Amino acid sequence: MCEQIISAILRTLKSILRLGDTTMDNNKTTITCQSSSRPYAIVIQENCFHQIVKQLSPAQKYLIICDSNVKPLWGDKLQLAITKANISCALISFPAGEANKNLQTFSDLHEQIALRLDRQSTIITLGGGVTGDMGGFVASTYMRGISFLQIPTSLLAMVDSSVGGKLGVDTSIGKNAVGVFNNPIKVLIDPSLLLTLPKNYFIDGMAEVIKHAFLSGEEYITFLEDNVAGILAMDLSLLSTLIIQSVQFKVMIVEQDEKESGLRKILNYGHTIGHALEETLGYSSIPHGNAVAIGINAANYLALKCGLLSEAAFLRIQNLLQQYHLPIFLSDLGLTGDADQLFHFLHNDKKNQDDQVVMILLEGLGKPIISTTQTTLQIKEAINYVIKNRSLS
Amino acid sequence: MCEQIISAILRTLKSILRLGDTTMDNNKTTITCQSSSRPYAIVIQENCFHQIVKQLSPAQKYLIICDSNVKPLWGDKLQLAITKANISCALISFPAGEANKNLQTFSDLHEQIALRLDRQSTIITLGGGVTGDMGGFVASTYMRGISFLQIPTSLLAMVDSSVGGKLGVDTSIGKNAVGVFNNPIKVLIDPSLLLTLPKNYFIDGMAEVIKHAFLSGEEYITFLEDNVAGILAMDLSLLSTLIIQSVQFKVMIVEQDEKESGLRKILNYGHTIGHALEETLGYSSIPHGNAVAIGINAANYLALKCGLLSEAAFLRIQNLLQQYHLPIFLSDLGLTGDADQLFHFLHNDKKNQDDQVVMILLEGLGKPIISTTQTTLQIKEAINYVIKNRSLS
Ligand SMILES: NC(=O)c1ccc[n+]([C@@H]2O[C@H](COP(=O)([O-])OP(=O)(O)OC[C@H]3O[C@@H](n4cnc5c(N)ncnc54)[C@H](O)[C@@H]3O)[C@@H](O)[C@H]2O)c1
Ligand SMILES: NC(=O)c1ccc[n+]([C@@H]2O[C@H](COP(=O)([O-])OP(=O)(O)OC[C@H]3O[C@@H](n4cnc5c(N)ncnc54)[C@H](O)[C@@H]3O)[C@@H](O)[C@H]2O)c1
Ligand SMILES: [Zn+2]
Ligand SMILES: [Zn+2]
Repeated sequence: MCEQIISAILRTLKSILRLGDTTMDNNKTTITCQSSSRPYAIVIQENCFHQIVKQLSPAQKYLIICDSNVKPLWGDKLQLAITKANISCALISFPAGEANKNLQTFSDLHEQIALRLDRQSTIITLGGGVTGDMGGFVASTYMRGISFLQIPTSLLAMVDSSVGGKLGVDTSIGKNAVGVFNNPIKVLIDPSLLLTLPKNYFIDGMAEVIKHAFLSGEEYITFLEDNVAGILAMDLSLLSTLIIQSVQFKVMIVEQDEKESGLRKILNYGHTIGHALEETLGYSSIPHGNAVAIGINAANYLALKCGLLSEAAFLRIQNLLQQYHLPIFLSDLGLTGDADQLFHFLHNDKKNQDDQVVMILLEGLGKPIISTTQTTLQIKEAINYVIKNRSLS
Repeated sequence: MCEQIISAILRTLKSILRLGDTTMDNNKTTITCQSSSRPYAIVIQENCFHQIVKQLSPAQKYLIICDSNVKPLWGDKLQLAITKANISCALISFPAGEANKNLQTFSDLHEQIALRLDRQSTIITLGGGVTGDMGGFVASTYMRGISFLQIPTSLLAMVDSSVGGKLGVDTSIGKNAVGVFNNPIKVLIDPSLLLTLPKNYFIDGMAEVIKHAFLSGEEYITFLEDNVAGILAMDLSLLSTLIIQSVQFKVMIVEQDEKESGLRKILNYGHTIGHALEETLGYSSIPHGNAVAIGINAANYLALKCGLLSEAAFLRIQNLLQQYHLPIFLSDLGLTGDADQLFHFLHNDKKNQDDQVVMILLEGLGKPIISTTQTTLQIKEAINYVIKNRSLS
């Protein structure tokens, strides 16, 4: 009883401490993420990349971790800028690609940073989601954890892996099977870094952006509908707005449920069947965002058939995905799938509870629910719909 | 200002929540360790090993991690007891020895547990410090962390690695270079497991016990002096008392300084020169506790020469170490060392601040200080004393 009262007081104090989450100042937006351990700022600002050195302390040692693609484009430049300011800064890189996000590279990176850094040093992770996840995991385990600053360079890393503290690597058994929860001291997002990102990765990241929009509601959806051309033309001001919307949305969800016990599950919208597609077709055969887009379409089909989602909303979502060049059927990618195998995978997924497939469905735009009541038949129908491209019947 | 008041209230609430740290009930002593994240209990009870199954939940899956020595002695028995109670329990083991506490074994263990456990499962780490550190690190990183129960089987693991949340593995570059801070859900200590521990490892663990006694004061020191024969004869009741004293002492220190920013440094007493001996002679040439015992003697010699420690106290410490068959000079082990090399290592140690060697010295029994004022000459003298066994001059 006494403990309950105290924990209620603590909760209240915690919410008092939550100052205004977002502050804007000129072109600079700062979103504070109140993680369970320690709050950190996510700063979104055009061209802030060229000012990073101002944020660093000459008394500290820095080390940049990036992949082989980002090194020549941005890594070397950043290292030069820092060392020019007479601040100690090393750089190590690893071969780009999800295939290298594994314990071997993790181990190699550790060997390379050893002796270069002490407990007071800071690691800068500069790159896409692979670099962010693996570099953050390295920082979180070097001498039981030193601080790190995250500079995402892909759209996915900016809108998705910049929030939530999920760090780690893949093993032969599973994606992100080994890792920790931990947060950077700060995230610096400069949308202009996206100008060198290959278009296919940009589109892939848009799948998560669109996911956020459908989960959050009308305002964000309309923004994406109204600005298709500008966003695809990489208008930096539109991209800033988009990143701010997504980060704010994800921060709000994650603050309420850091360890994914409840609310955070809604971020798996499109990911249940999306993940099954990746696992059964192979991660290298289908980009993540593409799988998510098809997964969203499948989940919506299920929601439509369960009477949750209107046909108008269903078609509106399909339309938006397509406008951003995302697939909604497997055949859009020239691929075919095996419905039984997909269903079998879904049923054995570790995220399920008591043998019930857990799915995130929309009751309407911006109204996700965590659903376990769909029947086997309904799930099979939804799978068949996206892999066979059956017309709406 | 407002934030300061709130954080003061939070601190007060935190201390209200600290219930009585130690409770005793028949033969069972429970010490609560208030870690920054979540408190956990350390239970010390003779023969509790045979009751473990009562603490487990039939709804959960368990997996025991142990080494190749502990498996046939205790691991298989525990697995059998658990599965007999119709609780799911797997066991995986790795080749015993510090040499296997590395990222390769870490990776192998991860591959082996994958698919066997879900997020709700619990890992049981059953073994010495190697198993505790590496198994706890595996549990803390499997799917970004699942819970683990720690059952230490060596004296060192019971009195030292059961408290403080340091987990990890060694790399080619350094001991415990990769890891995290994290705590088990509970530690169960059954002193009777020590009956199968080879004597040399028992003696080695005694070095940490004696270290705790000198750091904590007269009462613990007298207990060790009065009970040499009984402790060396493995009297379980005496061993229980000894473990309780050490765990209580370490808990008190760690609670006040979880991340080793201040007070916790005193636990490095004997470890500065001890560590330099291990590094320069090679970890396989000198057992950790032996190096610590010689390190304690060197630190005391320095304290004596600096006028901090009385000659009576100095000799009393030497005497106790020897009664427990621990070396105080390198020559006691038939080894020789290179003073210059040792000194060079000390000066480059990452634990130092601003090029000053940080040492823990005793101002008296139970009165440690963190000292950085000793001169190069004094340190060299102390090194020479323990490696050349120069008589007290
Ligand atoms: N931590 C989280 O919460 C979280 C969330 C979502 C995804 N992820 C992880 O993120 C990863 C996928 O992220 P990703 O798509 O960014 O992968 P990625 O890091 O491999 O980047 C994709 C490709 O773009 C290149 N690239 C990145 N930025 C560039 C730039 N500015 N210019 C030119 N090339 C650039 C990379 O070298 C790579 O070839 C997955 O491993 C996934 O598990 C993590
Ligand atoms: N986490 C911490 O705070 C902390 C503190 C101190 C030391 N450590 C770590 O602990 C390790 C040393 O611990 P250790 O000496 O227990 O090493 P260990 O685990 O290798 O055990 C020593 C030997 O005793 C055997 N053994 C253990 N229990 C036994 C039993 N009951 N019966 C028979 N054989 C048994 C082991 O198989 C091994 O051969 C080092 O890696 C050190 O870094 C960690
Ligand atoms: Zn995703
Ligand atoms: Zn030690």
